[in-house]
Amino acid sequence: MSYLESYAGKAVLVTGGLGFVGSTLSRRLVDLGAHVTVIDSLIPDYGGNLFNIDGYEDRLIVNIADVRDPFAMRALVKGQDVLFNLAGQVSHMDSMADPFTDLEINARSQLSILEACRHENPAVKVVYAGTRQQYGKPRYLPLDEDHLQAPTDVNGVNKLAGEWYHIVYHTAYGLRTTSLRLTNTYGPRQLIKHNRQGFIGWFIRLAVEGREIQLYGDGSQLRDLTYVDDVVDAFLRAGVGEGTDGNVYNLGGAAPISLLELARLIVQIAGRGSVVLAPWPEERKKIDIGDVYSSYARIEAALGWKPVTALADGLARTVAYYVRYLDKYAG
Amino acid sequence: MSYLESYAGKAVLVTGGLGFVGSTLSRRLVDLGAHVTVIDSLIPDYGGNLFNIDGYEDRLIVNIADVRDPFAMRALVKGQDVLFNLAGQVSHMDSMADPFTDLEINARSQLSILEACRHENPAVKVVYAGTRQQYGKPRYLPLDEDHLQAPTDVNGVNKLAGEWYHIVYHTAYGLRTTSLRLTNTYGPRQLIKHNRQGFIGWFIRLAVEGREIQLYGDGSQLRDLTYVDDVVDAFLRAGVGEGTDGNVYNLGGAAPISLLELARLIVQIAGRGSVVLAPWPEERKKIDIGDVYSSYARIEAALGWKPVTALADGLARTVAYYVRYLDKYAG
Repeated sequence: MSYLESYAGKAVLVTGGLGFVGSTLSRRLVDLGAHVTVIDSLIPDYGGNLFNIDGYEDRLIVNIADVRDPFAMRALVKGQDVLFNLAGQVSHMDSMADPFTDLEINARSQLSILEACRHENPAVKVVYAGTRQQYGKPRYLPLDEDHLQAPTDVNGVNKLAGEWYHIVYHTAYGLRTTSLRLTNTYGPRQLIKHNRQGFIGWFIRLAVEGREIQLYGDGSQLRDLTYVDDVVDAFLRAGVGEGTDGNVYNLGGAAPISLLELARLIVQIAGRGSVVLAPWPEERKKIDIGDVYSSYARIEAALGWKPVTALADGLARTVAYYVRYLDKYAG
Repeated sequence: MSYLESYAGKAVLVTGGLGFVGSTLSRRLVDLGAHVTVIDSLIPDYGGNLFNIDGYEDRLIVNIADVRDPFAMRALVKGQDVLFNLAGQVSHMDSMADPFTDLEINARSQLSILEACRHENPAVKVVYAGTRQQYGKPRYLPLDEDHLQAPTDVNGVNKLAGEWYHIVYHTAYGLRTTSLRLTNTYGPRQLIKHNRQGFIGWFIRLAVEGREIQLYGDGSQLRDLTYVDDVVDAFLRAGVGEGTDGNVYNLGGAAPISLLELARLIVQIAGRGSVVLAPWPEERKKIDIGDVYSSYARIEAALGWKPVTALADGLARTVAYYVRYLDKYAG
């Protein structure tokens, strides 16, 4: 039985399930025959969007709740086979403006969720969405899982804590936890209302709207990008894969690309928009981390995962999605 | 002017200043002519003890407050030249029994303190007490600052977060922060009421009371120990040293010693007590990290610090202290 077939009939809980990756994962799980419950707080500006499950509303259960609510979590984890734990505050900038909220969601809530699992469902498989941001400014490239974790913003610290609670709950209590450290994920269903949740969706919005994409410096900073379907595939593999308990795995893109090349490619695919270079604002320069991209060798060896969507294809699908549904996301 | 002389007339705030290391540091600062304010919550079981400043009560200011109180912290950091930030929940076991309180004190409060500094006193020098526990189970020995941080308990995760908030506030806002990662510190004034805050004080208490010191397994696990006066010296150096902003430094002991040798040495120095070996309890074995000791090469190179107190001397002073004042600590 393939890892995909094994989801048929499984009870699966997805926190952040109305968000970008969470909703894409939930739709896929429904297609695979899983019984899916999504939890989302629908906090404005955070990424949850009911339109993300358009066409699937009657095929999954939507439970609006905040992962900061420990009682809701205790009730909801009961009876689940797999928990995909993707709820989070993902804006680096917001984490600096309001570090306490970031801590509540990305650190404290993770403890609540793990305590809920420990008490109500210790056999559940948990896959957490970590981030390459935990590494901070690279000392070497590509980043592997043994790279020092030295985050440069509050969000990175809290995501680091959130991930390590998961690992500690494996070490101490045997919970079946795994963390995937996501790099820049792109694709349909990402929040593009504002520019505080990553640059790719924002670039695509600007291009689709025929506006200017502004890059800092010379735009030569390298990044790797993973298409959302590939990220979803990694979660699906980790959710049923053997030997993943207590382990962390990087995701990564096929090849790094400079921001300038990426922006130009988006403009080319969209057939509108433009690219301009601007000097670094002082505040942004301080927390800039230069080139950054990750090695996915560990998860490839363990689970056979690798990114398979060509960047041009993924961008074309993403641009087409936002051209069609811009009103559902730009508002 | 030596680093010691530079404290004369300085305004210094010590969080956790009635605790073991904090009170020893505060007494020394008073002797050096600093104007010292100590903050302590005096939470029962945490280590704060008014007797720790016996003889110094009229030479420093004691402000009973909890670092979880952001308003108290904002008022208290004003006008300080140096903040030694030592308040913490230090019991690994308590962090597993009540992870949320550990998070509040060791993570959230650190954000409060840093926000207080940022808004009220951005020029203050801050030295934070980190811990070698942040590293988790060693991959190689001695542990250096580039060792992967992979904590094995909730306390380790929260201390890691607390430290990295400090570093992030340097990176993003230029706060003058430094973290010292303490290893096993021993000496007078440590809490010995219960055995949840480290083994050395507890071993000493057992010996002083003529009781049995129980070791798990064969007692061959290696540890390094730092005498409290040496730890205080590291804080004093870091508090005025050049080039320490945004950096982390391990402390360490002169040489690792097995728990069995250590226990026997304590019994020998105390002239009473005994040592027995017992099988590992399952729950403890799971989070045991084997041999662990740290390299202090980085702080030696940067600040000239090294441990100078011979273990037998430090233990003799510690035993003598508790023999004399057992009633103040055993209660």
